[in-house]
Amino acid sequence: MKGLFITFEGCEGSGKTSLINRLVAYLEKEGIKVYKTREPGGSKIAEDIRNVILDVNNTNMDSITEALLYAASRRQHLVEKVIPYVEDGYVVICDRYLDSSLAYQGHARGIGIDKVYDINVAATNGMMPDLTIYIDLEPSIGLARIQNNNREQNRLDLEKMSFHKKVYEGYDIVRKRFSDRIKTVDGNQTREKVLEDTIKIINPYLERMMK
Amino acid sequence: MKGLFITFEGCEGSGKTSLINRLVAYLEKEGIKVYKTREPGGSKIAEDIRNVILDVNNTNMDSITEALLYAASRRQHLVEKVIPYVEDGYVVICDRYLDSSLAYQGHARGIGIDKVYDINVAATNGMMPDLTIYIDLEPSIGLARIQNNNREQNRLDLEKMSFHKKVYEGYDIVRKRFSDRIKTVDGNQTREKVLEDTIKIINPYLERMMK
Repeated sequence: MKGLFITFEGCEGSGKTSLINRLVAYLEKEGIKVYKTREPGGSKIAEDIRNVILDVNNTNMDSITEALLYAASRRQHLVEKVIPYVEDGYVVICDRYLDSSLAYQGHARGIGIDKVYDINVAATNGMMPDLTIYIDLEPSIGLARIQNNNREQNRLDLEKMSFHKKVYEGYDIVRKRFSDRIKTVDGNQTREKVLEDTIKIINPYLERMMK
Repeated sequence: MKGLFITFEGCEGSGKTSLINRLVAYLEKEGIKVYKTREPGGSKIAEDIRNVILDVNNTNMDSITEALLYAASRRQHLVEKVIPYVEDGYVVICDRYLDSSLAYQGHARGIGIDKVYDINVAATNGMMPDLTIYIDLEPSIGLARIQNNNREQNRLDLEKMSFHKKVYEGYDIVRKRFSDRIKTVDGNQTREKVLEDTIKIINPYLERMMK
């Protein structure tokens, strides 16, 4: 029996990590085999690539070079981890996938969504998630949450607000373009309600998988 | 005045390095500004990427991951080195470029020439060489030359003969497809004649550049 490949997307502070943790706990309680991952996802090669991307000395990295490296890392993670687990019947829950590249690099960094999409289709052989949950929360609210929670800030959290607004805009374009695959959950709700809405969306996919 | 971007292609032992060295000496004697390079070409980021590709521990690297990494390294070298030198009026002489990926990875490794081409067009924004010189020499002859010359063997020299034959086959497809750009020189001739033929091909390009 084949599993499912579900990805989670959203701006900084939208609550992806919290939702994923609660969802995984829920699914496991239901007796479903879950594999939780995130890119680069524990593949040595994918991590080697990630190290090149994040090396603070590599300040003059071209944005298309960066997009290709993310795609290479994504490819390796897909082949080494995602595909084997899906084929083994797991529900693979992945924190960010290609839509992040489309919103962040394609739109916010200005390479173009189509160009980044083409690179990623080549990288993934067109292997798209069965379902993508997008948590819709404006970055001004998300970033305020991060500060209130004293969560450690990463490189992206420190980008200018104009960048985060661009990412939000990018996600808006992407989720409209792939509306069959990407389902939106309102991130302005309580954690409990966000989880509840997510489970409602996922349930029909789980039922089809079980058949 | 814009310069020229000329790349050199051929199977192992076809005599690229020898031809390039003689050609560069000739051009410099003619008073032409030459920038000789090869991928990854001295860009730190491109070399970091190359190190990931060549890491002997990364034996389970997927071939599309590899193609994306070569494309990323190519992109960075292009942006950091090739384009600035061409714009500064240099004749850039580059040992291998995207046709190597088409022949080696696209055809010989079996990913498909079209797929590798698409990745590389995205990587290079379609920036193709003004001219590509292909040295046509069957790999059985080229590899025998390498052994006779006691040149140090690299990872590719040690591939099976069937692989080298596939590469040769790949180059045949590629040079027919891009016959406007790729000009063939018969590698079965003396070094002097190979250089002479190459100069004949290059001369009209140099004349156009000087205008």
